[in-house]
Amino acid sequence: MISDDIKTDLAKTLPAGRVVFDFNDRPEYTKDATELVFTPDALFFAETEDEIIAALKWCRRHGLPVVLRGAGTGYSGGALAVKGGLLLSTERMKNIVIDRDHRIATAGPGAITGDIMAAAERQGLFYPPDPASYLESTIGGNVAENAGGLRCKKYGVTKDYVVAVRGITADGDIVTLDNNCPFGLMDVIIGSEGTLFIVTSVTLRLIPLPSPGRTIQAVFPRAVDAAAVVAEVTAAGIVPMVMEFMDRDAIACSNQYDPGHRIEEGEAMLLFETDGRGADSDADRIKDICGTYTPSVLREASGADERETLWQTRRNLSKAVKETAHSKTAEDVCVPPSRLPELVAYVEQLRRRLRVRVNCYGHAGDGNLHVNFLGMTGSAGEAEDTQRGVAMLFEKTLALGGTLTGEHGIGITKKDFLAREFDPPTITFMRRLKAVFDQADILNPGKMFV
Amino acid sequence: MISDDIKTDLAKTLPAGRVVFDFNDRPEYTKDATELVFTPDALFFAETEDEIIAALKWCRRHGLPVVLRGAGTGYSGGALAVKGGLLLSTERMKNIVIDRDHRIATAGPGAITGDIMAAAERQGLFYPPDPASYLESTIGGNVAENAGGLRCKKYGVTKDYVVAVRGITADGDIVTLDNNCPFGLMDVIIGSEGTLFIVTSVTLRLIPLPSPGRTIQAVFPRAVDAAAVVAEVTAAGIVPMVMEFMDRDAIACSNQYDPGHRIEEGEAMLLFETDGRGADSDADRIKDICGTYTPSVLREASGADERETLWQTRRNLSKAVKETAHSKTAEDVCVPPSRLPELVAYVEQLRRRLRVRVNCYGHAGDGNLHVNFLGMTGSAGEAEDTQRGVAMLFEKTLALGGTLTGEHGIGITKKDFLAREFDPPTITFMRRLKAVFDQADILNPGKMFV
Repeated sequence: MISDDIKTDLAKTLPAGRVVFDFNDRPEYTKDATELVFTPDALFFAETEDEIIAALKWCRRHGLPVVLRGAGTGYSGGALAVKGGLLLSTERMKNIVIDRDHRIATAGPGAITGDIMAAAERQGLFYPPDPASYLESTIGGNVAENAGGLRCKKYGVTKDYVVAVRGITADGDIVTLDNNCPFGLMDVIIGSEGTLFIVTSVTLRLIPLPSPGRTIQAVFPRAVDAAAVVAEVTAAGIVPMVMEFMDRDAIACSNQYDPGHRIEEGEAMLLFETDGRGADSDADRIKDICGTYTPSVLREASGADERETLWQTRRNLSKAVKETAHSKTAEDVCVPPSRLPELVAYVEQLRRRLRVRVNCYGHAGDGNLHVNFLGMTGSAGEAEDTQRGVAMLFEKTLALGGTLTGEHGIGITKKDFLAREFDPPTITFMRRLKAVFDQADILNPGKMFV
Repeated sequence: MISDDIKTDLAKTLPAGRVVFDFNDRPEYTKDATELVFTPDALFFAETEDEIIAALKWCRRHGLPVVLRGAGTGYSGGALAVKGGLLLSTERMKNIVIDRDHRIATAGPGAITGDIMAAAERQGLFYPPDPASYLESTIGGNVAENAGGLRCKKYGVTKDYVVAVRGITADGDIVTLDNNCPFGLMDVIIGSEGTLFIVTSVTLRLIPLPSPGRTIQAVFPRAVDAAAVVAEVTAAGIVPMVMEFMDRDAIACSNQYDPGHRIEEGEAMLLFETDGRGADSDADRIKDICGTYTPSVLREASGADERETLWQTRRNLSKAVKETAHSKTAEDVCVPPSRLPELVAYVEQLRRRLRVRVNCYGHAGDGNLHVNFLGMTGSAGEAEDTQRGVAMLFEKTLALGGTLTGEHGIGITKKDFLAREFDPPTITFMRRLKAVFDQADILNPGKMFV
């Protein structure tokens, strides 16, 4: 905790009315989607680069960390002030400019990703990366975590669309890094979880809006059949815009959360959407393949309303799962797509072996599976089994040649496992790389590394 | 120069018959495509990682640089031993394994890029990045320079296909870096021009082989019309597999080099190839657009032979230009595609103002223009004007918001201009990043930085 004198000094340094010291009124700024709680020393709503530089320099003088925060929707703790310090909210820096001729969007870090998509769409353009939180999460947060989404197998992740980031170094210089920078300097920043650089503006390439396609839902009495469909669609060279997988318990959560949009029960559901060229022939082929694996439901959205219903179910899933339970621990492991059936089978084993509810859903095309450990009562046994279950899931994922985080980042929730996935020289490179940008370790300390 | 004792020691350290000290028989290893000459102290044809580690450790003990070399086709001097030392050729490490099920190629750094493409194609798969040198250049060199190519607007550059690099650190550790590594560690290696890491194996993702399309050539009496066609094709949302531009003098060089495959004279030629879905409708649309700008030639390859003729012309262009002249200085600047007409017009001005022959050709879709300064006599005035011309071209490129190298790298030929394109904090980050991987500055010293 900082003293009242220090608080007074900070309040004088920064614009009036935009510094917060009392978090009783603003508990949301002590949390993110992990449900962990860390109270910062102060919160500042930045509006300009000059203000950020002033705040940063003040923090350096006082030896306080600077923690960046977008919408606080992250699942790895990246936006939590785990060592106190100044929480720097960029949510007010949300200007969006679309340059239609050059197919470029320039956005403040606080711009909501969904607002960027909508602004692009009004000009006939498309910003594809769509984390499930896209209606709330900010582009600054998406860049910090290199967010993926449902469309990322076909269209790529955040990194594939960033052409430049402008921002402030830990030394207080304003710098623009673009994809011409030697040594991939811009790529280093994307996904660096706020530990290297304060992004103040993001330049994104946009693509022509693809023509809309068709939406197909299939429910299977046996999970192995859903897995076989995914393998066969992939082998056929079809890359649908979306190919989502949902297990029985995830379906149950969705039905409990939103009984009006009920999904038929089954061991597994697949949701497909095609788009662009070949949308029709792809959809026909997908239906054919599904049909050969005896689905209990195989339906195509007949219009915009039915499509919206199917989508709504998937988009709400994260919330639906959370509302069902007393506590939710969400992991997003990723394995080579061909190993996904094994991972799904292992989740089924975990469900039987643990004293917590376990379910999963995810992006079948790229092997990214969201696995949730749900405590239903808040008991100590549940907490223990969640911890055990996460560790078991991580071991299995690595054994299958996978990675511990598809799109959520390392943050604090996965840093203890870093050394399991990466060898000592790689971790040494990471440590040195942190010092390249932030020798004083002022930016988001305590994250990614043990 | 190293002493005879030291040579004897090195020869004893490494496998017999694969160390070279006398370059009179092997002058090619003192050069690359820049035509600059630097003689290494020794050359070693490595075959295994253990040998490379032994060579590296020996060089560290003796304070000698290690310079990596693939096929020596680079245009920026990356493979030149500018400070002497050991030239480490990886050309014998050329094993290629295609995993059809997972759509993955694993290749030694010395594998010829064209051989990887061919091996993939035999399995119905496609490795798209195609630098003009792809029949000679190695994947190790392509990774070192992050090579692009004719198809890169549609399919991306080398970086977009690398999923992992295995190699040896400057400290002699074997490490695998993949695209799950935090801080984009793998991205840092790609395009690092042999200054950070010794790549011993590259893992590449492959994509399904797209269906072949159509090849169209159009020659225009006015260069501005060719530029307008490019703009209109782009605005229509069409991304052909290839959209190449060639100016009058480049056409003349091609015709002189290969009179059997004569291109009709004109101010500018465009070469298009479509592929995959929509190949037919794209080709129709491209022909329509070309037609409205009164081309003097508009033809479509009627079969495989005619297609090969059109391609051959483009593929030979680099050699054709070189053979025409006494000396050739090749730059590959890149501007935002919308500024390409201005850049082409400026090259026309340079041609009139300088005492050297100047021509250009390049990838119109991504604004990447290869500009050649040709000395015809070897006079001092030509050398002077080449130097002046390159500087003027770089200034103009930066003024148009461009970058000094689209795909050739910085090496030694562009390092003096680095500070014109990047600001001091960025260059500081580069220097620090070099030290993250190679504190002793043993790997390819004297490159990229002044």
